[in-house]
Amino acid sequence: MKVVPIGERVLIKTLKDEEEKTKGGIYIPESAKEKKKEGEVVEVGTTKDGKELPLKKGDRILYGGYSYDKFELDDQEYIILDFKDVLAKIE
Amino acid sequence: MKVVPIGERVLIKTLKDEEEKTKGGIYIPESAKEKKKEGEVVEVGTTKDGKELPLKKGDRILYGGYSYDKFELDDQEYIILDFKDVLAKIE
Amino acid sequence: MKVVPIGERVLIKTLKDEEEKTKGGIYIPESAKEKKKEGEVVEVGTTKDGKELPLKKGDRILYGGYSYDKFELDDQEYIILDFKDVLAKIE
Amino acid sequence: MKVVPIGERVLIKTLKDEEEKTKGGIYIPESAKEKKKEGEVVEVGTTKDGKELPLKKGDRILYGGYSYDKFELDDQEYIILDFKDVLAKIE
Amino acid sequence: MKVVPIGERVLIKTLKDEEEKTKGGIYIPESAKEKKKEGEVVEVGTTKDGKELPLKKGDRILYGGYSYDKFELDDQEYIILDFKDVLAKIE
Amino acid sequence: MKVVPIGERVLIKTLKDEEEKTKGGIYIPESAKEKKKEGEVVEVGTTKDGKELPLKKGDRILYGGYSYDKFELDDQEYIILDFKDVLAKIE
Amino acid sequence: MKVVPIGERVLIKTLKDEEEKTKGGIYIPESAKEKKKEGEVVEVGTTKDGKELPLKKGDRILYGGYSYDKFELDDQEYIILDFKDVLAKIE
Repeated sequence: MKVVPIGERVLIKTLKDEEEKTKGGIYIPESAKEKKKEGEVVEVGTTKDGKELPLKKGDRILYGGYSYDKFELDDQEYIILDFKDVLAKIE
Repeated sequence: MKVVPIGERVLIKTLKDEEEKTKGGIYIPESAKEKKKEGEVVEVGTTKDGKELPLKKGDRILYGGYSYDKFELDDQEYIILDFKDVLAKIE
Repeated sequence: MKVVPIGERVLIKTLKDEEEKTKGGIYIPESAKEKKKEGEVVEVGTTKDGKELPLKKGDRILYGGYSYDKFELDDQEYIILDFKDVLAKIE
Repeated sequence: MKVVPIGERVLIKTLKDEEEKTKGGIYIPESAKEKKKEGEVVEVGTTKDGKELPLKKGDRILYGGYSYDKFELDDQEYIILDFKDVLAKIE
Repeated sequence: MKVVPIGERVLIKTLKDEEEKTKGGIYIPESAKEKKKEGEVVEVGTTKDGKELPLKKGDRILYGGYSYDKFELDDQEYIILDFKDVLAKIE
Repeated sequence: MKVVPIGERVLIKTLKDEEEKTKGGIYIPESAKEKKKEGEVVEVGTTKDGKELPLKKGDRILYGGYSYDKFELDDQEYIILDFKDVLAKIE
Repeated sequence: MKVVPIGERVLIKTLKDEEEKTKGGIYIPESAKEKKKEGEVVEVGTTKDGKELPLKKGDRILYGGYSYDKFELDDQEYIILDFKDVLAKIE
């Protein structure tokens, strides 16, 4: 089964805390409303003009915004994120 | 009788809980304001330019948003959904 | 006397409860803020570009939105509806 | 003295209750926030492109909206109305 | 000293009550939030495209809106008004 | 050190009370939320199209708006003002 | 590891208080909601048209706005800032 985002959206896997500290090394202060701010791109939607969004499967991203469409599949949490809430790519 | 959405809207059948777990296997956490987030496309409207929306009858979708125009017909619940609230297609 | 909508508006006759159940067969749940959601098109305005709106006299429609400009004439209730609040045509 | 609306506005005479019932025959329910919803066009402004608005002196209109710029002159109440709040022409 | 409005703004002299009743003859009901609604154009700004606004020095106007940038100079009250709040010209 | 505004912004020196009364002669009523409404242009940003804003160093201006980005340098208060809040030039 | 802003965003290092007073000499009054308003550009995103934003690595900036996406890396605080909240460049 594959979940393909419609429009300017990105499907990401949220990263578990352990993984977050090990791989990315980025610490988000407690005061931030939602702790997890790092994810891995799984599927990418398209712009209104049918162009590809400048992200690809496997990219590590930081994201902002406050409300997300979350769901779980096989114990992994996924988020369908508006592209405008993708803040940065971690290279 | 046929209900044809006007403009950038999609008519969907909401899926019953049993069906939802069997077919899609997607679990929506309780904290989500409205439990049901999965539907099946029944009829599709058109864009402002008269183009077809990129969905077709029978597509399984995930949808977001918080307020819907619901109605029932022959014990089945239907929603007329703004296309912008269709988050992803399940393939 | 004829009431001709100005701009992207539609003049509709709201349907009485009896009629609503007999003809359309659509049931709107009590939780919907305004029970009546079905109407019959009487007069149609034009788009900003002077084009015809894709509705014609006699069309049965479902409508959404929450505030309407209502008036009565000869015991019949009419609504002047923004076209964007017309959800679907019932064929 | 002549009052000429600037921009997409229309100067209307509001109709007195007696007149309203006799000529137009339209009844506005008590629940409407402002009872008077019928008027007669006196002067018409122009669109941003300098085109004429599709109304002329003497037209009977129904109008919506909730706040108006009112003034009185020789015991007659006038309203300078945004054109977007003109709902329909009564022919 | 000269005050030249920047952008789509108009500098007006507000009219004193005596003057208002004598010259214009327009009565604004008490319920209006700010009694004075009549002014005389003193200086006129320009549109974004550098065009002249359709008003000139000495024009009598009616204005709407609820908050103004007021100042006094030699006992005369002035307002710098957004052009969109100029409702009508009194001819 | 030089502070150069980015985008459609203007850096101004706010004027002290003494100076305000002597040079400009403009009195701002107490009821205005922020007393100081007069300033002197220090640096000017550019429009989105890269054009110069129609103000230059040394211009005396009246400004509106309610929230400003203020800072102090060598006992002088400066404001970085959105150009849209510049109401008029005092000549 | 490199954090590359997506879209019209800028990655900045916020400046520590000591550094702020020594280098920039700018004092932000206590009443300002967030004390730190000065930063150093680290990475720059691109405009929607794919153009470079008019800032480069090492630029000292003043910024406004009230909510930021902050994170820490190796004891240094970073902010991913919307370009529209960059007020001025300090030269």
